[in-house]
Amino acid sequence: MKLDHTAAGVFSIAVTPFEPNGALDLASVDRMTDFYLNCGVTGLTILGIMGEAPKLEASESLAITRQVVARANVPVVVGVSSPGFAAMRSLARGVMDLGAAGVMIAPPPHLRTDDSIIGYYRQAVEAIGSDIPFVLQDYPLTLSVIMTPKVIRQIVQDHESCVMLKHEDWPGLEKISTLRGFQREGSLRPLSILTGNGGLFLDFEMERGADGAMTGYAFPDMLVDVVKLSQQGQRDAAHDLFDAHLPLVRYEQQQGVGLAVRKYVMQKRGAIAHDAQRTPAAGLTPTAKREIDYLLARLAQHDPRAAF
Amino acid sequence: MKLDHTAAGVFSIAVTPFEPNGALDLASVDRMTDFYLNCGVTGLTILGIMGEAPKLEASESLAITRQVVARANVPVVVGVSSPGFAAMRSLARGVMDLGAAGVMIAPPPHLRTDDSIIGYYRQAVEAIGSDIPFVLQDYPLTLSVIMTPKVIRQIVQDHESCVMLKHEDWPGLEKISTLRGFQREGSLRPLSILTGNGGLFLDFEMERGADGAMTGYAFPDMLVDVVKLSQQGQRDAAHDLFDAHLPLVRYEQQQGVGLAVRKYVMQKRGAIAHDAQRTPAAGLTPTAKREIDYLLARLAQHDPRAAF
Amino acid sequence: MKLDHTAAGVFSIAVTPFEPNGALDLASVDRMTDFYLNCGVTGLTILGIMGEAPKLEASESLAITRQVVARANVPVVVGVSSPGFAAMRSLARGVMDLGAAGVMIAPPPHLRTDDSIIGYYRQAVEAIGSDIPFVLQDYPLTLSVIMTPKVIRQIVQDHESCVMLKHEDWPGLEKISTLRGFQREGSLRPLSILTGNGGLFLDFEMERGADGAMTGYAFPDMLVDVVKLSQQGQRDAAHDLFDAHLPLVRYEQQQGVGLAVRKYVMQKRGAIAHDAQRTPAAGLTPTAKREIDYLLARLAQHDPRAAF
Amino acid sequence: MKLDHTAAGVFSIAVTPFEPNGALDLASVDRMTDFYLNCGVTGLTILGIMGEAPKLEASESLAITRQVVARANVPVVVGVSSPGFAAMRSLARGVMDLGAAGVMIAPPPHLRTDDSIIGYYRQAVEAIGSDIPFVLQDYPLTLSVIMTPKVIRQIVQDHESCVMLKHEDWPGLEKISTLRGFQREGSLRPLSILTGNGGLFLDFEMERGADGAMTGYAFPDMLVDVVKLSQQGQRDAAHDLFDAHLPLVRYEQQQGVGLAVRKYVMQKRGAIAHDAQRTPAAGLTPTAKREIDYLLARLAQHDPRAAF
Repeated sequence: MKLDHTAAGVFSIAVTPFEPNGALDLASVDRMTDFYLNCGVTGLTILGIMGEAPKLEASESLAITRQVVARANVPVVVGVSSPGFAAMRSLARGVMDLGAAGVMIAPPPHLRTDDSIIGYYRQAVEAIGSDIPFVLQDYPLTLSVIMTPKVIRQIVQDHESCVMLKHEDWPGLEKISTLRGFQREGSLRPLSILTGNGGLFLDFEMERGADGAMTGYAFPDMLVDVVKLSQQGQRDAAHDLFDAHLPLVRYEQQQGVGLAVRKYVMQKRGAIAHDAQRTPAAGLTPTAKREIDYLLARLAQHDPRAAF
Repeated sequence: MKLDHTAAGVFSIAVTPFEPNGALDLASVDRMTDFYLNCGVTGLTILGIMGEAPKLEASESLAITRQVVARANVPVVVGVSSPGFAAMRSLARGVMDLGAAGVMIAPPPHLRTDDSIIGYYRQAVEAIGSDIPFVLQDYPLTLSVIMTPKVIRQIVQDHESCVMLKHEDWPGLEKISTLRGFQREGSLRPLSILTGNGGLFLDFEMERGADGAMTGYAFPDMLVDVVKLSQQGQRDAAHDLFDAHLPLVRYEQQQGVGLAVRKYVMQKRGAIAHDAQRTPAAGLTPTAKREIDYLLARLAQHDPRAAF
Repeated sequence: MKLDHTAAGVFSIAVTPFEPNGALDLASVDRMTDFYLNCGVTGLTILGIMGEAPKLEASESLAITRQVVARANVPVVVGVSSPGFAAMRSLARGVMDLGAAGVMIAPPPHLRTDDSIIGYYRQAVEAIGSDIPFVLQDYPLTLSVIMTPKVIRQIVQDHESCVMLKHEDWPGLEKISTLRGFQREGSLRPLSILTGNGGLFLDFEMERGADGAMTGYAFPDMLVDVVKLSQQGQRDAAHDLFDAHLPLVRYEQQQGVGLAVRKYVMQKRGAIAHDAQRTPAAGLTPTAKREIDYLLARLAQHDPRAAF
Repeated sequence: MKLDHTAAGVFSIAVTPFEPNGALDLASVDRMTDFYLNCGVTGLTILGIMGEAPKLEASESLAITRQVVARANVPVVVGVSSPGFAAMRSLARGVMDLGAAGVMIAPPPHLRTDDSIIGYYRQAVEAIGSDIPFVLQDYPLTLSVIMTPKVIRQIVQDHESCVMLKHEDWPGLEKISTLRGFQREGSLRPLSILTGNGGLFLDFEMERGADGAMTGYAFPDMLVDVVKLSQQGQRDAAHDLFDAHLPLVRYEQQQGVGLAVRKYVMQKRGAIAHDAQRTPAAGLTPTAKREIDYLLARLAQHDPRAAF
């Protein structure tokens, strides 16, 4: 089951479970996979930035992929961004052999000109092979690489295997509109657009033409519902649900500690055994945990899934 | 009336009104000043980044300062960040002569080490004189200069005239807690902390020990109310009001178009005649304006001030 | 006498003379101008980065321009890079009224995509007017803006008034070859290319097609001679002279202290009364001064102009 | 034979030999190792930035280390900088098991504050173990991390296993003087300082107190001689030899194409079979090769080792 441009819904950015001592918590991987599936996700993305991928060794990356792919009955996308193309190639070929649906490639932070970005993806596709479907990750806030809609179009047109955009520009609403406009005018072929940024703009991103979300907010079930409501044209209902979660979505969106917030909530929800991250990691103070608890209590008044 | 460390409440970051052709709209300056005062602000900050200060000529900066100071019965802080100390000095001395309460100084983007940041403020104080109260602006997301709590403490201890921190780190909740902890342990003297980031974390920033907000969200009256409710210990009421505004606060917080959103709403509220910015500026598409209108309509169900 | 694309030879980047207390040393301006003219320069560029332009107030910038233009019988280019277009416009119109031959505009550091760079120059030309000849400054190492040859071509083609490139990319030899190739194939109109980087690659830049240098090395007379020798096809002689100076050229090319080295040598040569810079500035330690003296003594064995 | 603070002389930054198709050229590794040894180096550093380390897979890194260590009778330092500590640890333990003398660790590009740099090295030492001697790499131009002398001192004092500084700040002469001053005043324990930057300032770096060079200029024999002459107090002779090479040292120092220049010359000298780099790589144009040939011909007039 390979990824293609019809992908839609919610591809959850999966966390990587660790033991408090920093070892992989493989026992939690199945539980976590089931949690996402029960939330109604249509896909999973593992080994992304929020999956602490750079902290893993190559063998660990393959072990997690094997386990998640074996368990999930949805397409699994694997992040293969690497400092070099040799490592990218072996990881990409390795995870596809294990049954991944596609890979995700972020641009390295030093890329500056339009041509250098386009050239980078040409080399990446040459390295991994044009038979592996890939997701183009556009995440300027963290990666400091800025891709204009024209550059994205060029990359998509250059490579049949580029089937999805993980849209994480900020602000990015006009970018979605521009890309969908390119498609209407015929200069861009069909492309799945899933959005990130922790879901902070998902309400309007859907209205601008996104196919769904690829992000890791601790309530993937909310993302699933908002995507569905929006697709069904139930605008007010979509915003009502989204707004109820927004204080926590916003709290999780703090750079640096966001992942700690996410894992803390996921542990409360029973999705993982520990909220531990591998070093280096920013943890939560007791005050921060109390703030999250307060946000969850308030959220529970609108969404029973937040009541534990 | 000089600024000191007891400053609290809401210092609104004032926009600068322009005509559609880019000329200063001085006719709107009094109206805008009155708008802020009617919202209950305890101070005003003009010529900040969101005041389009770098787009103004020196003579324009002085003209706006003169007019705002003459009209406002609250302390007026003036941004004097400049590429060089000569221009900083003449602007700072000039606005103080006009009756400003203090100035605000942001670090230039190239500063990297702790010592270079501390050294920069030493030179800045030497340039403007130690008799002018100043606000230390800590805004890493835009300025790319990272000040640890220890660096902030050093600057405050080095300079009697540093009376306020415009706290705009993101995430920054722990930073407030750490600075207040320094004060409790006696290693930092009293300091006013007003927070920025468009108010996106104001609810918890108040609970962490902030004295109020220095930001420019288009509903300063909401900021004023949240600060008051929080100071009165009415936690749930503060969050209820805050959460009602959060969808719009979040929408305004989009880098690049945020100011266009803010001016669009302020024009609707009658605070300025035009929502024009001086070139270069990102404008709003019709779709974006409809999205804001929708957010305002939803907000009006909770806060009648959003109904026009 | 307006600048046009036939400009060639050496446009020296002039320093700005200061008194030890940081005041402008206007008494040295004539002496310095004469020094450059005696070195055989074909033009002067004032108020560049190495002219400490950001440290000057607007009135000072005009005063220096007035004095240099009145004294020099060669074209004077004035740096007008500013944080905003309003200040850029008034400085540009002001210096042209005083008799400047053209202006130089560097891109602001935040520009990232091809389109944003091209758009910036469109706005800049709109601001200053299309009647003012301008030099496009391409200086990625310091400005962190990367312009591909295609982007440079677009800017030149967009604006008749863009008559010169200050080429300061590093490495940049292929960039010169590519731009000259564009001209040969007819896709780029004639353009003066003067090179910077303190002259560190001038030997080969001339061979690649540069028209000369626009840089501020403390021996402009060497630059003048190397340009002439290279234009006359005396390759070995050009390199011999260049190589004799290279140890000092290299020493001056240290970011941060380079200007201190340059002013120290220029003071020794009698071009300015003091080697002072305006704050903030990095000075020379006694050890550094002894190193420069040693380099000058060694240079004097090859070039009598270094013997004092 | 573990690395300690008495290390001195020239540790050549070794290139990694590739076949034209991008495969490792293991057949050239012995030849290259012998070349360096014949040049008189006192150590070798492999898998650095100029060794194209990020382009290698983990297994390749170990293979090269095994071969070089087995061949060389001098200490071999191995670069182990990695995006995560898990990979750093396994590479570090792996190469030490193979007989490496120590490892080199560069800071990741996002580090900004003094504390975050010091904290990073604490975590790195925790990860690899305090029994592995390591080289602190200070290379702001490429890594964009700025370490003050005080920060370097703190790291050295925190970790017995930090025995050497690869000094590659630019300009950095005063930094060497400051660190040696710390030692004289007793606040810093003995530390080997080897300098980088392609040797561009080696002449004065030795005079400031460096113990030698750790860089990869294509004539390591020149570096060896300059270090020796300088240590023997033969100042003029050291500068004479250095200056003869400076035009080529400078040419090699072009960011982006520098490694291509280096490999081209090393191939001419017979040190490696091919000048190929693994993708992505910037190659040399025919014009550039002719320029290098010209520089070599000129150099051969002073140094017979450049005549082939």
